[in-house]
Amino acid sequence: MGIVVQKYGGSSVADPDAIKRVARRIVEAKKAGHDVVVAVSAMGDTTDELLDKANAVSPQPPARELDMLLTAGERISMALVAMAISDLGYSAQSFTGSQAGVITDSVHGKAKIIDVTPGRIESAIADGHIVIVAGFQGVSQDTKEITTLGRGGTDTTAVALAAALKADVCEIYTDVDGVFTADPRVAAKARKLDRVTYEEMLELAACGSKILHLRCVEYARRYDIPIHVRSSFSNLEGTVVTGSIEDLQENTMEAAIIAGIAHDRSEAKVTVVGVPDKVGEAARIFTALADAQINLDMIVQNVSAAATNLTDISFTLPRTDGQTAMATLAGLQAEVGFDQLLYNDKIGKVSLIGAGMRSHPGVTAKFFSSIADAGVNLEMISTSEIRISVVVAEDDVDAAVQSAHTAFDLDADEVEAVVYGGTGR
Amino acid sequence: MGIVVQKYGGSSVADPDAIKRVARRIVEAKKAGHDVVVAVSAMGDTTDELLDKANAVSPQPPARELDMLLTAGERISMALVAMAISDLGYSAQSFTGSQAGVITDSVHGKAKIIDVTPGRIESAIADGHIVIVAGFQGVSQDTKEITTLGRGGTDTTAVALAAALKADVCEIYTDVDGVFTADPRVAAKARKLDRVTYEEMLELAACGSKILHLRCVEYARRYDIPIHVRSSFSNLEGTVVTGSIEDLQENTMEAAIIAGIAHDRSEAKVTVVGVPDKVGEAARIFTALADAQINLDMIVQNVSAAATNLTDISFTLPRTDGQTAMATLAGLQAEVGFDQLLYNDKIGKVSLIGAGMRSHPGVTAKFFSSIADAGVNLEMISTSEIRISVVVAEDDVDAAVQSAHTAFDLDADEVEAVVYGGTGR
Repeated sequence: MGIVVQKYGGSSVADPDAIKRVARRIVEAKKAGHDVVVAVSAMGDTTDELLDKANAVSPQPPARELDMLLTAGERISMALVAMAISDLGYSAQSFTGSQAGVITDSVHGKAKIIDVTPGRIESAIADGHIVIVAGFQGVSQDTKEITTLGRGGTDTTAVALAAALKADVCEIYTDVDGVFTADPRVAAKARKLDRVTYEEMLELAACGSKILHLRCVEYARRYDIPIHVRSSFSNLEGTVVTGSIEDLQENTMEAAIIAGIAHDRSEAKVTVVGVPDKVGEAARIFTALADAQINLDMIVQNVSAAATNLTDISFTLPRTDGQTAMATLAGLQAEVGFDQLLYNDKIGKVSLIGAGMRSHPGVTAKFFSSIADAGVNLEMISTSEIRISVVVAEDDVDAAVQSAHTAFDLDADEVEAVVYGGTGR
Repeated sequence: MGIVVQKYGGSSVADPDAIKRVARRIVEAKKAGHDVVVAVSAMGDTTDELLDKANAVSPQPPARELDMLLTAGERISMALVAMAISDLGYSAQSFTGSQAGVITDSVHGKAKIIDVTPGRIESAIADGHIVIVAGFQGVSQDTKEITTLGRGGTDTTAVALAAALKADVCEIYTDVDGVFTADPRVAAKARKLDRVTYEEMLELAACGSKILHLRCVEYARRYDIPIHVRSSFSNLEGTVVTGSIEDLQENTMEAAIIAGIAHDRSEAKVTVVGVPDKVGEAARIFTALADAQINLDMIVQNVSAAATNLTDISFTLPRTDGQTAMATLAGLQAEVGFDQLLYNDKIGKVSLIGAGMRSHPGVTAKFFSSIADAGVNLEMISTSEIRISVVVAEDDVDAAVQSAHTAFDLDADEVEAVVYGGTGR
């Protein structure tokens, strides 16, 4: 049998008992005949504790040193996991990101993996060891500095290792049973998906699902690595993320139209009112925002009112960037000549995602109707081939999710007992 | 000006305030015009906490993984020290032992430094950075595995860096004011030494002084690096360890006869009674003990009684090795044919050390007299050119130290206020 890569997040290795449980699960995979490579996050709150220490000595710690500090977290957890495996009579060796050949760019705090050179891991596998790799970290190609990958980093480490090692599957162990049709805290009847395509998972991740980070899914799609998202607290099968929409449509007539409904309460909406409807005005606005390093999400421009030749431009963005965006735009008012700026952070985004929708007419109408039936008003609309997103008032998000979940027949017959969470790295 | 290497132990970086204090001291040295390279230990109790975690997942953790785990401790402290320096407006970069080029053998848990290739450190110095290096750790030459240096490791790291960088001095910051003529907790009138030779410091370290580890002093002597032992809690000058006995005698007529008195309560005494006084019997005993990895200290053999042609052999050894030694010897009784084994762990060793004693007759007699004056009986005696050691009952150690301290005019006029301690790495 081939190589299996497993990833365990911080809550799965939070304390010695959790680490022992993880070790037993790893050994089971080894006993089943697989070569096993494991990426681990730091234990539970370790990262926050290290950040507290950093803040206690410096309000603005240098990014290089912050990466040096934080990477101690995975170093601790990986060594402990290797020890726990050894205690079960199996041989394990742990490797830092640098030792494992996780090569990144030089952007401290959110480095991107640009190559994986897993020579030491392959030697360790050949020698019969179970291999434990520190997630979330790497070494920069040019400067040989220690880097961290930012949010979702350990998932990305796991998928990158799976790709480099040509693994059969990358198992992401987490504290939920898999990917659900909606957040079960909002839609109590949400069902676990057995399978979802990369494209759908990308849209789910981009639209607020916290299960897998966007970068990890992008990486898996590029290298065609199946991801199995499953619980580290049970032996249930989870959700397999694999295959393209085309595969899905070729191979099964019964592909679900809709994969699920995601929601996101982390954004704010900015409206620039009364922008002169001339060539280049919108470009000026968005260039200024890009220069301020602000990532926009949905962008909507209304048709200009013929009488005034003025238009309104609305966009959504992370709330954390809201004040920067408003200050940037205010500085542009004289030059562009718009009337006023509106800011609203009491909004939420609800997204319907499904590869089937592009061949099924009427999905959009049904989605809007279901939201209207819940008495919820739409503030913005944006669509892609396999996604429809709407912005609603923050307080209306739950009602909109529930109504659409029922309308698209996603409700489970019985409520499944799940814990919904998800860790940051 | 040249390079200064500083070492800060665990108690000097125990918490954020301590780290900030250390950072200010480092910056002072930089302001004074030195290039500064710093070796740091793990914060306070970090090492013990990591060991607790290891024991919680495995009673016998593999040595490789234990080293991987423990090296996280210095990684944390060095990054925090660099951040605190940065907060003072100076640029600092931290480096692991591996990055700093500390090359060791492959013995996990007590690796020996075999080379230092400080290319990255020299580049960082050339770029104007203050350099912080993780103490106590390195990377093995053959296998590129992370290693730790064992007790006194950070002192050794500091001296090895000083040697490789051709530093002017290696400053060892600790929680005492320097090297004293005796342990001030025992001899209240102990005086701080301004200067002591490498040889004397080696004897002091070997005879129970906890200030500097033997390996660190050996390294400093081999590469002729002056060590300045001083307090991280004051600005007082400490003790400079430098120069050979020959230098001392050539350069100053007033060299002190005696450097100090050390004592050690960590040993036990074994006596093999009634050993046949034949060629090869003693060799058999000591070969068996060496095979059991037991390090002996003092060894004494009495003249054999002519009537019986039997002799007694006594030796001291670490108490922790006592049971192993007794079991080893018991297994030898039939073969060697000795009468019985005696074991006594209620002993202490008191040593008088001074380069001047070899040219001053009467030192030995005065030492023995001072101990006799205190009503203390001698159980074993051993001498070298610059040291006399005696074994006494454990309860008599304090009285022997005090009496000799006074007899050799070592008492200070006033009692100096000191804290005496010393950290393990």
